[in-house]
Amino acid sequence: MTKKKIVLLGAGLVGKAIALDLANDFDITVHDKDGGKLLNLQNERIKTVKTNLSERQSMISAIQDADIVIGALPGFMGHQTMRTAIECGKDIIDISFLPEDPADLNELAYRNNVTAVYDCGVAPGMGNILLACHSLDMEVSDYTCYVGGLPFIREWPFEYKAVFSPIDVIEEYTRPARFIVNGDMVIKEALSDAEHIYFEECGTLEAWNSDGLRSLMKSFRIRNMIEKTLRYPGCVEYLKVLREAGFFSYDEVEVNGNIIRPIDLTAKLLFPKWQLRPGEEDFTIMKVIISGMENGQKLTYHYTLFDRFDKKTNTTSMARTTGYTCTAAVNLVLNEMFTKKGVFPPEELGLTKSNAEFIIDYLKNRNVIYKLKVEKN
Amino acid sequence: MTKKKIVLLGAGLVGKAIALDLANDFDITVHDKDGGKLLNLQNERIKTVKTNLSERQSMISAIQDADIVIGALPGFMGHQTMRTAIECGKDIIDISFLPEDPADLNELAYRNNVTAVYDCGVAPGMGNILLACHSLDMEVSDYTCYVGGLPFIREWPFEYKAVFSPIDVIEEYTRPARFIVNGDMVIKEALSDAEHIYFEECGTLEAWNSDGLRSLMKSFRIRNMIEKTLRYPGCVEYLKVLREAGFFSYDEVEVNGNIIRPIDLTAKLLFPKWQLRPGEEDFTIMKVIISGMENGQKLTYHYTLFDRFDKKTNTTSMARTTGYTCTAAVNLVLNEMFTKKGVFPPEELGLTKSNAEFIIDYLKNRNVIYKLKVEKN
Repeated sequence: MTKKKIVLLGAGLVGKAIALDLANDFDITVHDKDGGKLLNLQNERIKTVKTNLSERQSMISAIQDADIVIGALPGFMGHQTMRTAIECGKDIIDISFLPEDPADLNELAYRNNVTAVYDCGVAPGMGNILLACHSLDMEVSDYTCYVGGLPFIREWPFEYKAVFSPIDVIEEYTRPARFIVNGDMVIKEALSDAEHIYFEECGTLEAWNSDGLRSLMKSFRIRNMIEKTLRYPGCVEYLKVLREAGFFSYDEVEVNGNIIRPIDLTAKLLFPKWQLRPGEEDFTIMKVIISGMENGQKLTYHYTLFDRFDKKTNTTSMARTTGYTCTAAVNLVLNEMFTKKGVFPPEELGLTKSNAEFIIDYLKNRNVIYKLKVEKN
Repeated sequence: MTKKKIVLLGAGLVGKAIALDLANDFDITVHDKDGGKLLNLQNERIKTVKTNLSERQSMISAIQDADIVIGALPGFMGHQTMRTAIECGKDIIDISFLPEDPADLNELAYRNNVTAVYDCGVAPGMGNILLACHSLDMEVSDYTCYVGGLPFIREWPFEYKAVFSPIDVIEEYTRPARFIVNGDMVIKEALSDAEHIYFEECGTLEAWNSDGLRSLMKSFRIRNMIEKTLRYPGCVEYLKVLREAGFFSYDEVEVNGNIIRPIDLTAKLLFPKWQLRPGEEDFTIMKVIISGMENGQKLTYHYTLFDRFDKKTNTTSMARTTGYTCTAAVNLVLNEMFTKKGVFPPEELGLTKSNAEFIIDYLKNRNVIYKLKVEKN
């Protein structure tokens, strides 16, 4: 039996983990414009092609033979990637943190007989899947998600390393955060409502509002829903200062005759500092708390993920937790366990209990473990 | 009797105060490349000329008829201004915060029969003069100066307005700070050793190391000497973050094909925010503490300056405290009370007690008052 063909777009930290995870069972080709990143992937089972994916025609050529496409590019390329795949009649699983709601592509996907799932990582991703799964049995009243990917070693001032596309990290610091309080949408600025939370696994962190709920606000009507991002305490203040001073702005300014966007200089200065050094280890911490009435009983489900850098394979925790959620979804689609046509957020996968269980088991087999504690109120 | 001719180079906040102070008694002409600043000076007694002072030939033309020149340009133009005046045989009083030691011009000034005094403001300036004056009677063992110019209204995050050349403000945040401990020079980074200090006049401020001693380290051998800059508590941390992240760097970086210096973008973003709004009021706080043995007795002199924005004339406190020290020195030179030839730091003025008293009285007449408390130890 010939192996199914997967085309992976993007060879960043997460892309690499995806490629290695799928290489045993599938015929996988990885495209990236950065030859250096492709070199990192050197593996006899993985084909690599240097491709400028910002050119539409190049992307079309790249994906033409694929049975399924994986989008692992920065957020600002996500929508265009999904559109191109859908136009070409290709199923796609996307993990970019795309700023647009891709629902506008739903009809086209349906007509083209395409299955497209976006936001299919750890967050957004796994929280959505867990909530969807519980919503089958429970009248959910409260959904809370705290999530962060952090380096073990703290380095002043930001005490942070970008374990995914750094330009999307800054998006989290600027996009207004939407959440639901008593059934109404509340919008606050990113980085607001900072609070300290103690985690047994990694000590005290600071949680603040970020725009992480995304599709969940449309998919479910739940009285209280919030997602907050976790960082080491203190750095939120510095990020606010940079934002207030204008260093995250996309508005062009003239500097000695050159027109530049402050964000681009900030990226140039900070991204090298935010890069994990070779061998530097990260972890992912996520708490998903789902409360409601189930069979006449008030219950609260507490899921805790604490995942570490994998020293054996040199894989970051963020790549593990995001990438393996994505590859689980790829398997669901290729195995025809999820066959709906259209554009879907990840909660759609969780609405079939067996699929949610498949994903949780798939992750568990890779030692990405969501510990569950059930509390009766 | 014809009035003496003064040429003032620079029409910033401080320049304006200088011009108005001298306009009654002297024939004063102000040059600046910024026509808007000159318009601010509209006064029948003051001549204004728009001149590009970064062109040497233009500066030479500007000063050719002067009896004395006042340099009130940003620090990076200070050395060139002094050199040009000295080459033209013109006495000069300079208040730019020039980064270079202008001692290299001393011989030329002596040969050209020129009196040149630099750093002739409040700080550097008045601290030097007070120390020099006391050194005549006292074996000084300790010199401490705390100084800051601040807005009354605090606005997050920097809670600061640049009451002098903002590019020189950032110099204070980056130039390594030199001070004397037990007779040895100590060099620490700027913004280091932050400590809270309570002032009766304006509450708790934060003091940190800046390179403020300058000429004092060469002029005097004193066991302990330090100058610290004062700001509202907290902002020092944000400045450290900006510095650490590279936003104060003069090293060119390439941003999307444009070559820029991060400091230039930072200036573009922050300086408009650091500008005093019309009618916004500032204050200057300075404490100078001089200890030692005098006539067999251990004494400590505490000078405190707390000066406010002048609502009547719309003059900032920093312009008052810096500008009137400068105009006092101009009077000393024009009245032939200080006639030495060469390049001198301000302490040279204070080494003649009558001159120090003249300056203190001159300031007092303008309501810039150094309160003195003497402590017997």
